[in-house]
Amino acid sequence: MRLSQFHLRTSKETPADAEIASHRLMLKAGMIRKLAAGLYTWSPLGLRVLRKVERVVREEMNAAGAIELLMPSIQPRELWEETGRWEKFGGQLLKIKDRKEAEYAYGPTHEEVITDFARAELASYKQLPVTYYQIQTKFRDEIRPRFGVMRAREFLMKDAYSFHLTDEDLAREYRNMYDAYGRIFTRLGLKFRAVFADTGAIGGSASHEFHVLADSGEDAIAFSSATDYAANVELAEALAPGKRAAATETMRRIDTPTQKTCEDVAALMGIELARTVKSIALMGVDAENNPQFVLALVRGDHVANEIKLAKLPGLAEYRLATEAEILEHLGSEPGFLGPVGVKPSVQVVADRAVAAMVDFVVGANERGAHLAGVNWGRDLPEPVLVADLRNVVEGDPSPDGHGTLGIARGIEVGHVFQLGRKYAQAMGCTVLDETGKAATPAMGCYGIGVSRIVAAAIEQNHDANGILWPESMAPWRAAVCVINPKNDAGVAEAAEALYRELNAAGIETVLDDRGLRPGVMFGDIELIGIPHRIVVSERGLAAGTFEYRHRAAAEAEQLSRADVIARLQATQPA
Amino acid sequence: MRLSQFHLRTSKETPADAEIASHRLMLKAGMIRKLAAGLYTWSPLGLRVLRKVERVVREEMNAAGAIELLMPSIQPRELWEETGRWEKFGGQLLKIKDRKEAEYAYGPTHEEVITDFARAELASYKQLPVTYYQIQTKFRDEIRPRFGVMRAREFLMKDAYSFHLTDEDLAREYRNMYDAYGRIFTRLGLKFRAVFADTGAIGGSASHEFHVLADSGEDAIAFSSATDYAANVELAEALAPGKRAAATETMRRIDTPTQKTCEDVAALMGIELARTVKSIALMGVDAENNPQFVLALVRGDHVANEIKLAKLPGLAEYRLATEAEILEHLGSEPGFLGPVGVKPSVQVVADRAVAAMVDFVVGANERGAHLAGVNWGRDLPEPVLVADLRNVVEGDPSPDGHGTLGIARGIEVGHVFQLGRKYAQAMGCTVLDETGKAATPAMGCYGIGVSRIVAAAIEQNHDANGILWPESMAPWRAAVCVINPKNDAGVAEAAEALYRELNAAGIETVLDDRGLRPGVMFGDIELIGIPHRIVVSERGLAAGTFEYRHRAAAEAEQLSRADVIARLQATQPA
Repeated sequence: MRLSQFHLRTSKETPADAEIASHRLMLKAGMIRKLAAGLYTWSPLGLRVLRKVERVVREEMNAAGAIELLMPSIQPRELWEETGRWEKFGGQLLKIKDRKEAEYAYGPTHEEVITDFARAELASYKQLPVTYYQIQTKFRDEIRPRFGVMRAREFLMKDAYSFHLTDEDLAREYRNMYDAYGRIFTRLGLKFRAVFADTGAIGGSASHEFHVLADSGEDAIAFSSATDYAANVELAEALAPGKRAAATETMRRIDTPTQKTCEDVAALMGIELARTVKSIALMGVDAENNPQFVLALVRGDHVANEIKLAKLPGLAEYRLATEAEILEHLGSEPGFLGPVGVKPSVQVVADRAVAAMVDFVVGANERGAHLAGVNWGRDLPEPVLVADLRNVVEGDPSPDGHGTLGIARGIEVGHVFQLGRKYAQAMGCTVLDETGKAATPAMGCYGIGVSRIVAAAIEQNHDANGILWPESMAPWRAAVCVINPKNDAGVAEAAEALYRELNAAGIETVLDDRGLRPGVMFGDIELIGIPHRIVVSERGLAAGTFEYRHRAAAEAEQLSRADVIARLQATQPA
Repeated sequence: MRLSQFHLRTSKETPADAEIASHRLMLKAGMIRKLAAGLYTWSPLGLRVLRKVERVVREEMNAAGAIELLMPSIQPRELWEETGRWEKFGGQLLKIKDRKEAEYAYGPTHEEVITDFARAELASYKQLPVTYYQIQTKFRDEIRPRFGVMRAREFLMKDAYSFHLTDEDLAREYRNMYDAYGRIFTRLGLKFRAVFADTGAIGGSASHEFHVLADSGEDAIAFSSATDYAANVELAEALAPGKRAAATETMRRIDTPTQKTCEDVAALMGIELARTVKSIALMGVDAENNPQFVLALVRGDHVANEIKLAKLPGLAEYRLATEAEILEHLGSEPGFLGPVGVKPSVQVVADRAVAAMVDFVVGANERGAHLAGVNWGRDLPEPVLVADLRNVVEGDPSPDGHGTLGIARGIEVGHVFQLGRKYAQAMGCTVLDETGKAATPAMGCYGIGVSRIVAAAIEQNHDANGILWPESMAPWRAAVCVINPKNDAGVAEAAEALYRELNAAGIETVLDDRGLRPGVMFGDIELIGIPHRIVVSERGLAAGTFEYRHRAAAEAEQLSRADVIARLQATQPA
């Protein structure tokens, strides 16, 4: 492609409403243009990248044995009624009436349609296992579309659905898809993690999310330093620490006239925050379903985890206690609470880390006072209820027993689910099994946000000057830039020849023949993230070299024609 | 691909609601499955064909210099208000409200969106000419969706839009796209015609339709035997015949007691229908806008053309005359009307062919009577108004002066328009011209019904046993069929080897390893239209041959491995 015959329109201005780097850079590079809230046109430049992602996804899905089909974007209400999702899916479902007042939705996902297809097309266990997929436009009516294509309303997705006679077959295909996803993100050149995930709204029994790692990611991920274990921070288990050490201090009262937080108390005392204990007053129910006051203890430097708290007996629907309830049960106002000397009606629950502490600091249940040097079994009874109540932190042992946890931020770009028989059952999808009896197949579903990957890749790969595309996603791998193409020294011809030679060698190359000033031209090529830049100039020609620079390199090099080609061939993606 | 690992589900039953061959065969072959009215899932088999068409269209559009982008399917009402089409487009526009009650349409076409893109992205004449295209899902809310994907509501379309500073540039690009369309349909292996067309609802100054020829086509097309002239029958001009011959008969009265039509009169008299003249009584207006009775004359074997009639002075909004009006002006009841001896208040208009007739037969304006041997200038005045009033017929001279006309039926699969400045003007899209002044660009638009081509190709290429795909559209070009794969004679291995060899040679081949009985297997392969079938059997292996049969051939042949490969390579599409 010659840039003079392409549509490239970069912008120097930083768009006002773009909050994250990918949104900003996609607008500045002219990859997308906003049509309306959450609706974007992919410009010729943007579409080249989108198609690269699509191609890798398609090739790996095919290689994994999945079969491509194409379902309509518009789906009849009746199917969604069968699974109860017409109401349950919520406001993200864009509902539509046609000219005959029949109701439809613009598909945000296709479980209903594929299950309808399967119940008509699958008759026998001999047709199983089977995995269908499509790459198709979807719509979710986000309340607040933002971040460009990262959270657009109309977006491109790969969604796959598998059907199995047995749970073992489902588990096998789940692993197969899991592995294919790994190959996809590896081929795309992205740093990613597969994390254990909550199944959320789609439901089912097992699921992993695939996250592209980026500092701007919405999700915090805990991952093992030694294995491929990874989980959402909220879901990762904090293991019990080693045995409790021996007490060395006696319990004493500390005046804390205005110190109501662990941070303030630790600062006042000049001790580590990890020596303090936070007491959180909650209201749950007891075994007889009567209100139960609970004091949950986590270490001062830890964060209590709401999901884990809610798993404790009686706390499924807990709430924070009111000041009046706290006063009634502990005789104190908030800010000075603690587990020492509490009434039997107060249920104390200790995080595993707290249960292993010695010589710790807690509130004294008295305004302006804390207790230091507190020890279990001596100053208060050994905790009866000990559980994992907190978010993991960097350095915690990995729950799989290998290595320690690191924390990274991630952008969810893929999701694999074991759906089980929920949809097939609701929609009466059966096949005949080996004995001739109708059997409900188990299903898996496997999604990849194709358009979202483009934005996530930029979040992971950019600098102050623009995008740094991985080789496999770049609109072109190389740019041949012509300095002063209209002079007589033959630079235009030399550039043209190199451009042709590179493309003939299978290296997708663009020729910047726009005749712009070098600074403007280089700025564009950097902004749009072409990995390899080759400058053809009169001076270089005289010396028999081209100026080569990798997008991530600090300096340019002078290379011969053969070396340029060798350098590019060496980095050719699969 | 191995069929055992593919999803193929053919059906012996003829679907009840499928009115045309392509709909019937696509359902029987399992290419599509209906989800709801006008909404179809493309099965893995169907999608393979759809993607073949898409690929050819994309390659030729790229080769023609068009630049691909991707616009959203959902478009905001505001843009359609700017061109007035929110109301004018009619019921086919699927209107949608989002959760915030903002209004959108599912795009049936993208003139508004591309013009919005252009007014933002095009600043200077230096960026022109430019042609953008996309291949994308569209929706038209047809009142009566039918014929499967031939007239579906959701469908796949290639739409292109060009922008130009001058009308000459537009005309040049129009020709460029016209030529590209020719290459597309030629590569797809389809018999087609580009026909002059009425611009219809989209508006503009010049347009051609591209029709795939098929007996079941909705449109009748007149085409020259000598040139590439083609037009809708309704629009093709019927040229004036040569000079009128000399009269040989005298006028005489014929008793036609019950003969009210030209056919009946000709039969009674034993003469050719072409000797009779049909008199059609119409009501238009005169120069003062008063009602005017008109008698339009066409030859008995010709069909009057409503579009041409309406172009006559005073007939822009004509209607058929009532019996009372006929009685008032001609003194007769219908069935016996004619131009002889009429009052001056009757305006007679003769078709060019009628004006050249001698010794013809007309009604006598008297119940039960016609006149024969009638001649202009003797029995009635020479016609004052002579015009082209009829549809052309097979054998008419071609309006371009070369050859004679044939008539064929066609299915519209493409359309190119010169839109002019209508949309750019309405939406305030301008660029700066060479003098720095704002200029409104001229636009062209160019559509291809990608999914419709699949159905049209079947209408053109099928027989009693199923589809006969052109080489470039077939889901696979060749099928290797294994007879009795589980025996010990090595047929499975030989088939596998041939299958691999063909694919390695770039011949897309499917292996039918399903182990079905030969009749069932061959039936499937014929139904789904694979052009080349190679049967691997124990007997063939013993003789060192494979049974080869082209889908269109009456008989199979025994060929060596090398000959099979040579045969397939010789028919390899571009």
